[in-house]
Amino acid sequence: MSYISNIEDIKKCPTEFALALRDTLNVLSGKWKLNVIGVLFFGKKRFTEIEKGLEEITPRMLSKELKELELNGVVNRIVTASRPVVIEYELTESGYELKKVLDEMIGWGILHREKIFKK
Amino acid sequence: MSYISNIEDIKKCPTEFALALRDTLNVLSGKWKLNVIGVLFFGKKRFTEIEKGLEEITPRMLSKELKELELNGVVNRIVTASRPVVIEYELTESGYELKKVLDEMIGWGILHREKIFKK
Repeated sequence: MSYISNIEDIKKCPTEFALALRDTLNVLSGKWKLNVIGVLFFGKKRFTEIEKGLEEITPRMLSKELKELELNGVVNRIVTASRPVVIEYELTESGYELKKVLDEMIGWGILHREKIFKK
Repeated sequence: MSYISNIEDIKKCPTEFALALRDTLNVLSGKWKLNVIGVLFFGKKRFTEIEKGLEEITPRMLSKELKELELNGVVNRIVTASRPVVIEYELTESGYELKKVLDEMIGWGILHREKIFKK
């Protein structure tokens, strides 16, 4: 489905489209967001497992990024009341649905990189 | 075409994918980038025409955003040697190809917004 297939579409509800675009960009922006989401595509993970998957991230940064992703409804924090308590993170349905967005972003990035280097 | 259809894909070349993703995010980040690109989807425009299409942008900000988009190969600056000289901006091929990315971002943003408000 295309949201901006013609000019009339944009004229009809530019604000809704602009807000939706901005939402998505806001969710993905931040130094580590994409990387954290990327790791969680592999499934539910503990904090230390995510940390291992990302070089150079500090626990404080990871904690901040996870909290923001949770607030944005992209990540669920699951607490299992065992001993010791197990805390895990997983993508929400919305989080998994980002796959198509990321696919298009990767596709564009690869093509664009080729064009830039051809120059 | 899907770039992250399965885990093996990501394992195969995580760096290339990550770079491509980051490229795209970098190109789109910035307070006005999306709006400027949105206006230019309508076709070639002069500076003042873009300015009119965007409320609240200052000429200085617009100039900065256009320069960055030009450096990133998303926008062409066309100088016509008439009197007075006419300077126009248009999306490059890469710029127009962002449409699919923006479409997916809009689609996700709309769905996500519905889910958040349902809660």
